[in-house]
Amino acid sequence: MRHSTFKALSSLSAVRNLANFVQIVEVGPRDGLQNEKTIVPTSVKLKLIEMLSDCGLSKIEVTSFVSPKWIPQMSDQKEVMQGITNKPGISYSVLTPNLKGLEGALASGANEVAIFAAASETFSEKNINATIDKSLDKFRDVCKHASTNNIQIRGYVSCVLGCPYEGHILPKAVIKVSEQLLSMGCYEVSLGDTIGIGTPGSVDTLLREITQFIPADKLAMHCHDTYGQALANIMVAIMYGIRTLDSSVAGLGGCPYAKGASGNVSTEDLVYMLHGSGYETGVNLKKLIEAGNYISEFLQRQNGSKVSKANSKL
Amino acid sequence: MRHSTFKALSSLSAVRNLANFVQIVEVGPRDGLQNEKTIVPTSVKLKLIEMLSDCGLSKIEVTSFVSPKWIPQMSDQKEVMQGITNKPGISYSVLTPNLKGLEGALASGANEVAIFAAASETFSEKNINATIDKSLDKFRDVCKHASTNNIQIRGYVSCVLGCPYEGHILPKAVIKVSEQLLSMGCYEVSLGDTIGIGTPGSVDTLLREITQFIPADKLAMHCHDTYGQALANIMVAIMYGIRTLDSSVAGLGGCPYAKGASGNVSTEDLVYMLHGSGYETGVNLKKLIEAGNYISEFLQRQNGSKVSKANSKL
Repeated sequence: MRHSTFKALSSLSAVRNLANFVQIVEVGPRDGLQNEKTIVPTSVKLKLIEMLSDCGLSKIEVTSFVSPKWIPQMSDQKEVMQGITNKPGISYSVLTPNLKGLEGALASGANEVAIFAAASETFSEKNINATIDKSLDKFRDVCKHASTNNIQIRGYVSCVLGCPYEGHILPKAVIKVSEQLLSMGCYEVSLGDTIGIGTPGSVDTLLREITQFIPADKLAMHCHDTYGQALANIMVAIMYGIRTLDSSVAGLGGCPYAKGASGNVSTEDLVYMLHGSGYETGVNLKKLIEAGNYISEFLQRQNGSKVSKANSKL
Repeated sequence: MRHSTFKALSSLSAVRNLANFVQIVEVGPRDGLQNEKTIVPTSVKLKLIEMLSDCGLSKIEVTSFVSPKWIPQMSDQKEVMQGITNKPGISYSVLTPNLKGLEGALASGANEVAIFAAASETFSEKNINATIDKSLDKFRDVCKHASTNNIQIRGYVSCVLGCPYEGHILPKAVIKVSEQLLSMGCYEVSLGDTIGIGTPGSVDTLLREITQFIPADKLAMHCHDTYGQALANIMVAIMYGIRTLDSSVAGLGGCPYAKGASGNVSTEDLVYMLHGSGYETGVNLKKLIEAGNYISEFLQRQNGSKVSKANSKL
């Protein structure tokens, strides 16, 4: 037993030293605010995006080009895009569920878009009103059009570790959707534990299988902290060589209909873990905490970052 | 890079399969309640201990034989010990800072005691009013007397990853105190990240050094979740072969003087992680959640377990 343990750890240290830059994708303004009850005014969103831009974050997902009928929280997408002071070196990406969304994003000057597929058939049908196959057909058109316009496309796969309707999701379902997203032109696929149900063990199982087909540098992890497992799960992803991680300032998000439900893993706690473990992110943690406090105060919401809470009492 | 990553993970899987029982030491009634503002009536403590005993937990730290002048929360230690319905197979341990405490514990029928040293000189002086060396002298007497009475002794070392006064603590300080506790008769040393400041990287550094001198089966990890790092840190401990973990139901504890400060890692979230990752604990998670809800409701305190919160909305 001890022999195996030592082997694991010396390898862990090796991984740490070999590739120590981690790319954080800040999804708070989109995935976070989209799932908050309060509809946040454009000016507050712009202030938040500006604060996040000042932290050293280089990828920020800022809004979603979806129908306001479905997601009223994102109905000011054009105003948000117009209001952003683009900083050099920062990609401000947007979610585009279809061609119409992509056209809106292009007209607003977006330089990166994201599409959102599911590994669960039922979730796909309930969430985006299409079977997985039909959704992929639609995304293929989006990708073609984006590619013609030299726009980078990121792919999301939701429910990779479990689905609220179907329960367990097989790794092969995740692999199939991920491969298709990559083949249609996505530069990377972000694996979403949408309901935060995964554990280090289930992440291990998924990544052991998927990395046999897709290299780790084409994958990102997108963890929600619903069951408190996000950082532990992310450590496993790092051990598999994944170096792109999605997170949300102040842990914004969660289910708007459930009191106390956790949202995305908080960027502050993630950055604290990474910096403390010898990884670089380029992010200024102090400024990030200020951004998280700003939006939490506006929302009159408990800050979802434990690092922020710990700092507030220092 | 990918080669190293794969090596790490195949070893991780090997560790998982080889030694899959994890001993949980439930410290909620002692370390948890001792750090809550509210002084909990004996009857509530006894009900909590009974509920915890019904969960399948086999080690529960129930009280502390310290002066009520210092820790009024534990002033009913005799009544607690008298009131417990001992269940076979469960060790109900108590903290004993000195010979007087040990005598009280013996008179109350305790079958296991714990002593509490620090890896930080300043913390030792401020917390237990003695230099590390003087505290160890005192503990040596406690150990001798306990051994004469066939009482098992567990050792704690606090501040192993950082100290509120001294900041960084060197692994060699932790090793020195741990070795002395073992040599005076402790069957195990629990390494406490008292202020929850550690990260997977700093846990890795500490354990890589300490396991060169002390085998992993003589070590336990005691993590606080102040910075949200506890479960990720524990995953690293597991990779080092450590199979004894301290935790607190509902994440009880925290600093009584700081609003929103996190306590011990919650037993519910730990058990969820372990079971989901293929480890056995013998604990019934559903019953554990009930115990955590019971004490949280009594304390009118937000339940510190995310698993409990996620379950409450199902």
